[in-house]
Amino acid sequence: MSDSRTIRLDLEYDGADFVGWQVQKEGRSVQGELCRCLSTFLQEEVVPVAAGRTDAGTHALGQVAHFRTASAHPPDRMIRALNSLLPDDIAVTAASEVGAEFHARYSALSKRYRYRIETRKGALERRFVWTLYRSLDCDAMIEASLALRGVHSFRAFCNSDPEPDSYKCDILDTSWTRQGSQISFEIVANRFLRHMVRIIVGTLVDVGEGRLTGAAFAELLRDGRSERSAAGATAPAQGLCLLRVHYPDD
Amino acid sequence: MSDSRTIRLDLEYDGADFVGWQVQKEGRSVQGELCRCLSTFLQEEVVPVAAGRTDAGTHALGQVAHFRTASAHPPDRMIRALNSLLPDDIAVTAASEVGAEFHARYSALSKRYRYRIETRKGALERRFVWTLYRSLDCDAMIEASLALRGVHSFRAFCNSDPEPDSYKCDILDTSWTRQGSQISFEIVANRFLRHMVRIIVGTLVDVGEGRLTGAAFAELLRDGRSERSAAGATAPAQGLCLLRVHYPDD
Repeated sequence: MSDSRTIRLDLEYDGADFVGWQVQKEGRSVQGELCRCLSTFLQEEVVPVAAGRTDAGTHALGQVAHFRTASAHPPDRMIRALNSLLPDDIAVTAASEVGAEFHARYSALSKRYRYRIETRKGALERRFVWTLYRSLDCDAMIEASLALRGVHSFRAFCNSDPEPDSYKCDILDTSWTRQGSQISFEIVANRFLRHMVRIIVGTLVDVGEGRLTGAAFAELLRDGRSERSAAGATAPAQGLCLLRVHYPDD
Repeated sequence: MSDSRTIRLDLEYDGADFVGWQVQKEGRSVQGELCRCLSTFLQEEVVPVAAGRTDAGTHALGQVAHFRTASAHPPDRMIRALNSLLPDDIAVTAASEVGAEFHARYSALSKRYRYRIETRKGALERRFVWTLYRSLDCDAMIEASLALRGVHSFRAFCNSDPEPDSYKCDILDTSWTRQGSQISFEIVANRFLRHMVRIIVGTLVDVGEGRLTGAAFAELLRDGRSERSAAGATAPAQGLCLLRVHYPDD
């Protein structure tokens, strides 16, 4: 369509009551709720595409999606209309018209995720953290995580079976924040495999609890021959949040 | 009882699903849940007394309560036992043995509350803010709030009918934090009347929306003759959080 526009949406959502980003046979999905509200507002069928297909239970502060539309509504009007149509647990934080070449997923240079671990019982943030109820050797976890930076095979850190040679990811940055009994891990990569951040965190908790050495953690990244079973458990989805997607124009 | 000890508990709770601190005829109360778990653990009937009887829906990060017990359990054991017995939305963050003269309410010098206002739709913090969906003149609100400091009659800012001359409160500090589309108000006072912070915030929002001048706000505090109807609406409970209680020994 020569008269179609491409719209970028920035989204925040509470993942607790969703089966994830993507439409599934059953259950509420973020994409499904957006489809419904966009189609109501624009009076045309619209399927938004997201930068990252977050898991069931995973939150987003900075998810990005795009869709094409023949409508002429200004982006500001879309924000207001969508926010009034969408349920409480999804918010459109920004909307803008972008070039036809923009693709929320393929145009992205990198994505930033945050994972929060709480070592004591708390009430207010309980839905957004993994509560472990035990102390961790945070210094050992931070030290071990330095091995993540750069290009590695994440075969051991992936709950799916992509094509051969497609386990490689470039980790551009990692950082930690400690505040009281909470420790928060951020990771930026050009791409993420299925459950990758959650398995990294689960394995780093093995380091923090003394079940795995930092050297053994680094070894899992080294040759790409390690199997999924060599890494730790998949940390719960609710501690994870997609913070930001980076594009060339940012 | 000569062999009884006084225990101080520091508590965090998500007020959403409670009828408030205090036991009511019906509904879940924080005090009721604590009574139940303390009695189970200590095998004696215990009724904790709180520093502030928070409303239904109001949260706490630093509520303080005390109770007397004949048990010899060390405080650390009480924390672990209570946290495992209590529901998800209440956490004991500290427990300590204090002198017999300690009373969570009467020993308190002051309390600090925070009220958070959000002017755009958000998903992750929606249960902990008052979302207004419109912009506010924050500078006018901040300016008007300076009149609060010191001793004033809060007759217009109180949803109850205490004895005459008991409307006086000493406001020790007020402060504001702006972050993105969120504005957060903190207030410290020697005592708070029923719904006082929520009515102050509701009235300051009238200032922020241009329905009331800063001078008219100050006038409400001046002579103590203004009636409740002269002030603004009672802001929703969910934006309010009891942050901290101050005692002489802190």
